[in-house]
Amino acid sequence: MLGIVRAKGTLLFDENGKEYIDGIASWYTCMYGHCNECILNRVSVQMKQLDQVVFSGFTHEPAVRLSEELIKILPGNQQKLFFSDNGSTATEVGVKMALQYHFNQGEKRNVMLALEDGFHGDTFGAMSVSGLSVYNGPFEEHFIQVERIPAPTKNNIGSILKYLGTRLEQKNIAGFIYEPLVQGAAAMKMHDAEALNKVLKLLQDNDVVTIADEVMTGFGKTGNYFASDYVDTKPDVICLSKALTAGLIPMAITSCTQKIYDAFYSDELKKGLFHGHTYTANPLACTAALAGLELLRSEEMQHNIERIIESHRQFDLQIKDHPKVGGTRQCGIIYALDLNLKMERYGNLRDRLFRHFMDNGIFLRPLGNTIYVLPPYIITDEQLQKVYGAIKSALEIV
Amino acid sequence: MLGIVRAKGTLLFDENGKEYIDGIASWYTCMYGHCNECILNRVSVQMKQLDQVVFSGFTHEPAVRLSEELIKILPGNQQKLFFSDNGSTATEVGVKMALQYHFNQGEKRNVMLALEDGFHGDTFGAMSVSGLSVYNGPFEEHFIQVERIPAPTKNNIGSILKYLGTRLEQKNIAGFIYEPLVQGAAAMKMHDAEALNKVLKLLQDNDVVTIADEVMTGFGKTGNYFASDYVDTKPDVICLSKALTAGLIPMAITSCTQKIYDAFYSDELKKGLFHGHTYTANPLACTAALAGLELLRSEEMQHNIERIIESHRQFDLQIKDHPKVGGTRQCGIIYALDLNLKMERYGNLRDRLFRHFMDNGIFLRPLGNTIYVLPPYIITDEQLQKVYGAIKSALEIV
Repeated sequence: MLGIVRAKGTLLFDENGKEYIDGIASWYTCMYGHCNECILNRVSVQMKQLDQVVFSGFTHEPAVRLSEELIKILPGNQQKLFFSDNGSTATEVGVKMALQYHFNQGEKRNVMLALEDGFHGDTFGAMSVSGLSVYNGPFEEHFIQVERIPAPTKNNIGSILKYLGTRLEQKNIAGFIYEPLVQGAAAMKMHDAEALNKVLKLLQDNDVVTIADEVMTGFGKTGNYFASDYVDTKPDVICLSKALTAGLIPMAITSCTQKIYDAFYSDELKKGLFHGHTYTANPLACTAALAGLELLRSEEMQHNIERIIESHRQFDLQIKDHPKVGGTRQCGIIYALDLNLKMERYGNLRDRLFRHFMDNGIFLRPLGNTIYVLPPYIITDEQLQKVYGAIKSALEIV
Repeated sequence: MLGIVRAKGTLLFDENGKEYIDGIASWYTCMYGHCNECILNRVSVQMKQLDQVVFSGFTHEPAVRLSEELIKILPGNQQKLFFSDNGSTATEVGVKMALQYHFNQGEKRNVMLALEDGFHGDTFGAMSVSGLSVYNGPFEEHFIQVERIPAPTKNNIGSILKYLGTRLEQKNIAGFIYEPLVQGAAAMKMHDAEALNKVLKLLQDNDVVTIADEVMTGFGKTGNYFASDYVDTKPDVICLSKALTAGLIPMAITSCTQKIYDAFYSDELKKGLFHGHTYTANPLACTAALAGLELLRSEEMQHNIERIIESHRQFDLQIKDHPKVGGTRQCGIIYALDLNLKMERYGNLRDRLFRHFMDNGIFLRPLGNTIYVLPPYIITDEQLQKVYGAIKSALEIV
């Protein structure tokens, strides 16, 4: 375990004074840079004013303002926000919305649909819908009933639609949860927006609640504010976390349409969505999120995003035909490269790669034979070149 | 929804400038007072140094120091800490530990034992073990298999032990989760330490993993650091959150004994406990928690706790024989009073009570016919009297 003592902008500093470029923005959170003064100043002021209060019966300005600002950039059909603490709980809320949406209307739908190799978190509900099953052995028999379809592509969309057409006749699929366009934990596996659109359209026509898990993809990483912006059919529910709070404090939001919300709005207590964590809508986290949203919408940050996208494109042209490269893919500022060899997800060769990057002052976390980059938006061109250089030299050691 | 704009010490201030004594410490979190300068100063310094970093392969001083300090006050058998984000996830980790502990040893134990009327959170695993089932309708069929026993008392302990003696012969109970001494969401229902001790002893003799959910009771509220300090048999696992971070930022910890830890320690990847949230062990939350621990252990705060306990006792003598009082109970600084009438958990009369307290500048959240107080440790004698006064006058309006 390496001790990290300091972070600033794109850089992490360890206990020996060595610095590392944070090539994955500390798991896709610190997109505006570590210890960003705009954000810290705002949180400092809030901290002296109102640190925390019960978010039941009470409300506060940071939550209200964040909600107003977030609704402005979410897909137009998203009308209501439900706060929780992390990606797993955002997913749990989404799954509960889907199941109870039908329950409240007296319809029994008890199956969730999900993508193969999806990942949605580590709590029981979230684990259930996650398809990366290597870690789930001891718990599987306790899971929600889930069925899976492959991530949709131009090639398989015909057979997926045909399968679903028949499957939907049973009318017991409550919801569909998916990471739109990029499946993060599946090593940044990417799929097709048009094909995904057809799946969503068919499911919504059959009253299946569609839940976009944008915990990883949200807040600019795909080049748009949200991956769902690339897909014509908008989801009924969206899960948000990670970069939501600009890398400062855990928080999550599950947004939904008016239609979903209305199914829970009732004088009957039991029709309500009961889910609340103690620190729900923590004022400090809301303040960090608000500051983050302002930065994201700034011309400077949008320009940064464009710059990184173009830089990745240029790098891809240099590297994609390298004999040790099996394939490359890009979505916005997310760039991934598969090595032309079989590797274990967490094996010896993977560890050697990790070590190579760290020795070169770059923090990247290869997943099996996939090396991926998801840098803070404020990364400089020079730092990007350093990252690319380390990837090139990595090809020599495998 | 009432807008809260400011908080300081024991007080909340609303958008109209009216102030309220926070009689439940914002759901049992802000025990050292809102916007406590000792805590804010420490977090401000940390925020400029290291805001957030991946807690996998990396570590940092706030997490290391918090772990060292926390181990000092936890029951002596607790050796290892597992970080997560809130009470629900702390519970999920505890349940996963119990199930996988047996799985890793090749034993199939798939039933969790829990207390009637227990509450452990809102994610699927946490909901499963919660016995307050009014809200669980749409999800129940997706739950972990759970069986329940009544909260142990001097009267029922004989029959509980007899029942368990037979039940344990099936050798399929993996773990037992319980809120020690006080069941919070069950309206501060209290049970007996000696009887609980007998249950824990019998279960541990049968290799059932015992999980104390001290999310509500932890950090001084019972008069000791932890409710488990009152019980001779120490739990295998303890869940902590809420006051852990002194009311500033969400975080949770699940601690366990060396024996539990050892069941997961292996070269085989699949024997590991896979559970990680992005902001796990957030440096700001760890810093707030460290500052909180220092305050808790100070002579001043320990004196405050004694002072509140004695003050509650005096109030109890005045009120317990009132004709509208059905019963009273106290555990440390937690004081609860049942009205001598039937009420709905969230009904009209409950709302009138809530309104009465708010009109009198007191924030309390009655649960059904139970009024309870769980004040910040820094509440003054004068403020305590104001709270008691509002409770007395409430008896006149019901």
